[in-house]
Amino acid sequence: MKKIRVAIAGLGRLGRVHAENLAFRIPNAELCAVCAQTEDSLNWARERLDICACYQDFAEMLAKETPDAVVLVTPSDLHCEQIELALDAGVHVFFEKPLGTDPARCAATQAAAEQHPELVCMPGFMRRYDKSYVYAKHQIDSGAIGTPYMMKCTGIDPESAIEGTLRVTGSFGGIFMDLGIHDVDLMRWLLGCEPAQVHAVGTTVKYPAFREGGDYETAAALYQFTNGAIGMAHAGRCSPYGYHVETEIIGTEGTLRISGVPAKNLTQLYKGNGAATECVGSFQERFEEAYLAEVQEFVDCVCENRRPAVTMEDAVKATVIAHAAGQALRSGEIIKL
Amino acid sequence: MKKIRVAIAGLGRLGRVHAENLAFRIPNAELCAVCAQTEDSLNWARERLDICACYQDFAEMLAKETPDAVVLVTPSDLHCEQIELALDAGVHVFFEKPLGTDPARCAATQAAAEQHPELVCMPGFMRRYDKSYVYAKHQIDSGAIGTPYMMKCTGIDPESAIEGTLRVTGSFGGIFMDLGIHDVDLMRWLLGCEPAQVHAVGTTVKYPAFREGGDYETAAALYQFTNGAIGMAHAGRCSPYGYHVETEIIGTEGTLRISGVPAKNLTQLYKGNGAATECVGSFQERFEEAYLAEVQEFVDCVCENRRPAVTMEDAVKATVIAHAAGQALRSGEIIKL
Amino acid sequence: MKKIRVAIAGLGRLGRVHAENLAFRIPNAELCAVCAQTEDSLNWARERLDICACYQDFAEMLAKETPDAVVLVTPSDLHCEQIELALDAGVHVFFEKPLGTDPARCAATQAAAEQHPELVCMPGFMRRYDKSYVYAKHQIDSGAIGTPYMMKCTGIDPESAIEGTLRVTGSFGGIFMDLGIHDVDLMRWLLGCEPAQVHAVGTTVKYPAFREGGDYETAAALYQFTNGAIGMAHAGRCSPYGYHVETEIIGTEGTLRISGVPAKNLTQLYKGNGAATECVGSFQERFEEAYLAEVQEFVDCVCENRRPAVTMEDAVKATVIAHAAGQALRSGEIIKL
Amino acid sequence: MKKIRVAIAGLGRLGRVHAENLAFRIPNAELCAVCAQTEDSLNWARERLDICACYQDFAEMLAKETPDAVVLVTPSDLHCEQIELALDAGVHVFFEKPLGTDPARCAATQAAAEQHPELVCMPGFMRRYDKSYVYAKHQIDSGAIGTPYMMKCTGIDPESAIEGTLRVTGSFGGIFMDLGIHDVDLMRWLLGCEPAQVHAVGTTVKYPAFREGGDYETAAALYQFTNGAIGMAHAGRCSPYGYHVETEIIGTEGTLRISGVPAKNLTQLYKGNGAATECVGSFQERFEEAYLAEVQEFVDCVCENRRPAVTMEDAVKATVIAHAAGQALRSGEIIKL
Repeated sequence: MKKIRVAIAGLGRLGRVHAENLAFRIPNAELCAVCAQTEDSLNWARERLDICACYQDFAEMLAKETPDAVVLVTPSDLHCEQIELALDAGVHVFFEKPLGTDPARCAATQAAAEQHPELVCMPGFMRRYDKSYVYAKHQIDSGAIGTPYMMKCTGIDPESAIEGTLRVTGSFGGIFMDLGIHDVDLMRWLLGCEPAQVHAVGTTVKYPAFREGGDYETAAALYQFTNGAIGMAHAGRCSPYGYHVETEIIGTEGTLRISGVPAKNLTQLYKGNGAATECVGSFQERFEEAYLAEVQEFVDCVCENRRPAVTMEDAVKATVIAHAAGQALRSGEIIKL
Repeated sequence: MKKIRVAIAGLGRLGRVHAENLAFRIPNAELCAVCAQTEDSLNWARERLDICACYQDFAEMLAKETPDAVVLVTPSDLHCEQIELALDAGVHVFFEKPLGTDPARCAATQAAAEQHPELVCMPGFMRRYDKSYVYAKHQIDSGAIGTPYMMKCTGIDPESAIEGTLRVTGSFGGIFMDLGIHDVDLMRWLLGCEPAQVHAVGTTVKYPAFREGGDYETAAALYQFTNGAIGMAHAGRCSPYGYHVETEIIGTEGTLRISGVPAKNLTQLYKGNGAATECVGSFQERFEEAYLAEVQEFVDCVCENRRPAVTMEDAVKATVIAHAAGQALRSGEIIKL
Repeated sequence: MKKIRVAIAGLGRLGRVHAENLAFRIPNAELCAVCAQTEDSLNWARERLDICACYQDFAEMLAKETPDAVVLVTPSDLHCEQIELALDAGVHVFFEKPLGTDPARCAATQAAAEQHPELVCMPGFMRRYDKSYVYAKHQIDSGAIGTPYMMKCTGIDPESAIEGTLRVTGSFGGIFMDLGIHDVDLMRWLLGCEPAQVHAVGTTVKYPAFREGGDYETAAALYQFTNGAIGMAHAGRCSPYGYHVETEIIGTEGTLRISGVPAKNLTQLYKGNGAATECVGSFQERFEEAYLAEVQEFVDCVCENRRPAVTMEDAVKATVIAHAAGQALRSGEIIKL
Repeated sequence: MKKIRVAIAGLGRLGRVHAENLAFRIPNAELCAVCAQTEDSLNWARERLDICACYQDFAEMLAKETPDAVVLVTPSDLHCEQIELALDAGVHVFFEKPLGTDPARCAATQAAAEQHPELVCMPGFMRRYDKSYVYAKHQIDSGAIGTPYMMKCTGIDPESAIEGTLRVTGSFGGIFMDLGIHDVDLMRWLLGCEPAQVHAVGTTVKYPAFREGGDYETAAALYQFTNGAIGMAHAGRCSPYGYHVETEIIGTEGTLRISGVPAKNLTQLYKGNGAATECVGSFQERFEEAYLAEVQEFVDCVCENRRPAVTMEDAVKATVIAHAAGQALRSGEIIKL
């Protein structure tokens, strides 16, 4: 079995998920080096992953370790530059969404990637690798719902994680760029079409800090696609019952709904309040398998010299659209795309 | 429209449900008289139903009011005698389950009914008139599940009604006669076959009064039918989450499950404990429509000189089988039927 | 028991539901007369309801029968005039939604009603009388979900009724006036606030006749309320799986979802395609009990000289808002209210 | 990180699952050798797992490879002997259920294991490592359902696998030993008590070959435990809709139900037949994660010199009880334990 050497940059919550997967669960990858800002994170890697090659400088890691591939789980505003550095060093790249928050900057990185057709450069839209979404995509492709003409998307972070969310409010390009971008990617992927316009409204009810940070606690966008299809997207920050990602794809012959109840597992508890299904508590819990599957696919693509189904163009378009949704939200206008 | 004059005997909880239905919701019936033990109940009828013809003696009511039909919601041990009185008076009869608790006594009443083929004599197995069960029966008859070969039945009274349940423990022939008889009727109806044997076990965990009353808080019976089909029936007295009646019919091509969650209505509440569906609180709530539908069918049968699908034989056989299940429970033996 | 004499005008599909309820299921009402356009409908009333007082002229019926109350299930564009006629004749009025399709005309009728404070004039928003919605309202009022700040509404007519739907496309003020007005009423009722603006988009995929009729097969509206609350409403005409009305109310402490699966009954069928719950087939099936409950409440209000919780102001505001949503849909603009 | 060398014996369907997990997904294990009957299986191991150490003789593998541990996925009637061989060779053992089909033989192996307290000897009841069952156990232990007093268990193999099932009918000790033993283990684990008696009935409707093989297509057992608790267990061979394992634990304060719908994933498809959830197709699909988790726990126990929560006593008792259920089924008697 061919095995590649993979480095990782970024060891926050999601970075550690990816790092453990690379170290332990992806047989054709060897985690060869890590890069992180804090000694704390690097110590975690030394102890938990038994990694000696620990860096605080990304370029230095690339130069000294010459990995085959790198996985970027760094802050969004570093992605474009780091991707370009890696490509220039001849290193395959997997990067977490979003590619960036500035559409023009993203386009430049896409151009850079096109200069390196020999390298895999894969965006991390993990939902595309979640078994429920894979199943839905397959159902759509096999005609189970006829022609899809509408989607309804919900993404609500758990209130239990509100402190972390509030700490970064204002960064990451706002609620549609940070959270809603997943739904943008899903709509493009499952409707097979591009949005023509977007209108959005938002509100902040429970945590005024969102308002103070120039963002919204809850936002809703209404999209129309070039073929007339309709998209309704709801992004929120403080679900009291867990992490709620739900998606509905409506077609002429049927409707697919994914995760109407974001069930933690297959157990129902019948008590005084009725028959209850506990909900997943976090994005890590909900997409645990998908985070593994997407990086496995990345590594397989590198090993087999394939290209993943999700492309740099997907990454750029998602950023452009999420950016427009943010503009719509702040301006109160209908933004044409 | 032909309209018949109907009297009712018994104004307990269920009696009042039937009385109100007869008075207000069955257009081709006129509630003409009531019979009850207590002044309290009779006053309720006078005020709520505007009925003047109030009796404490059943035979007197029949003699003086000469109704076309009578609905019996009296204690089980009075049914056989009252049915015979009514039939002798030329009055059609609807009676609540069970026909009686003594198989021999029931057979005598069945013989009496056979002497009056001109009269409708209909047992009150309301589940047969519930829209979910009607739907399931239709699915089975249309072949949706192939050949049914197994049933699993659950009937658990709500703990919220435990005081009333405890007051009558020891009467009514025990848990299988009082509660489990509904499942006996469902199994005969939906499997289209008779049981050949039954074994049962019971336990009492929370309310020792059941043990003291010679009964069980919870009991389970395992039936085998003459065609080999299997029946599993669970009867209980103290569900902490509401009134739970659930039925599963398993066939060679599919399975029907009725009321896996005994939902109060179509609402789900997503809160800290998950996504919860509140459960129905009582038999009256669960079978509100069925109680109306069964008596409507009775009245229609009288008006149209039809015979209902549910027969005296069904009533007698259900008693015989529930009686055997009770024997099995008390003796620890396998009882052959 | 006080009993009132009620006439009905309009014997289409829903009219017949109301007529049967008045004739058979509302004990304190006596159906005294009917008015309909066609001999067919009048014959139905004669045979099925045993009614002799049959009219084709509404004013004539009022004059000759002098009913206590009238129930209007006539075409929307007749409501305002008929209401005014009835009020002038001293007759209580229940009318089906919408009050009308022209906001100014509706306001005049509201003014007329205010001239008759002694008369009940009740709009027919039956969802407010459906037990699931009543339950949700009660949960909200009791604080179960904290402060509601968002609603998502879905209303899709069944494709099985498409022929009837297509016959009247273009009438009734378009999809938001005909169908979406229910969601407008629900949002006002459950959020306790008025919308400040609305934007909408629509599409027609399967039945071009909608486009030709100047309407849309599917439309989606995004509302923002004066308190910042957000409303997302989806109205459609051709659900392949039945009649789908779903409502979600999102609050700071929890979320209520009504009818995520518009279950026909409590049965699940496990077959090759999985575990399936059949859906209700029509508005009559879904809201059978609510249609009865709302007219029962109307009759009770008349008998007890009470006023219903739903008011003429609710009827007028719903029309104004649905009208604005229609304008938004046709213009592509954001309409301020 | 400490890493152990693990050999595997048996490369059937489940054996390959375990082999891949050991090779790729358990970081502290190194798959060092395989033993299988057929060249086909050994070739699969060479190609898929890149393993050179391939054997057809179990004792030879132990002698030549001296692994730290061995995983047995061989036919049930070989388990006892192979376990003893491994223990004698100083090798830790994980074995698939059942330990054996003969209670006396199992007891001898348990005694052998007790001679080697320094070695881990762990039975493979994977459900104990499934996240839904782990969650349920945690709920019970934390008091969520009060005192559990009843369990209802369902295990039905998919009809899609019927050919394989029929090939081995008659081996493996019958339906309760092969399939029902999982439910026996669950009942002991979750009720915390031992059964006192069992009665069982069976039927064969669709595949007469079961009857010819001396087994049953469907069987149901009714257990009573020493503390009075009740167990109802249903085992079947030909579910038309997938692999259905469902478990209900009923307690004085609530009820836990696991997998009322054995959902394949979180997607619902709304079509003509209603809202449907596709079911899992096989035990491998349903328990994919649990199979990994149980062997991970085994390897961790070896590495950390811990003992797993599931013991040899559990394995022996499960065999004794499943054996008694089989006796009950064949004899028609109530078997005391």
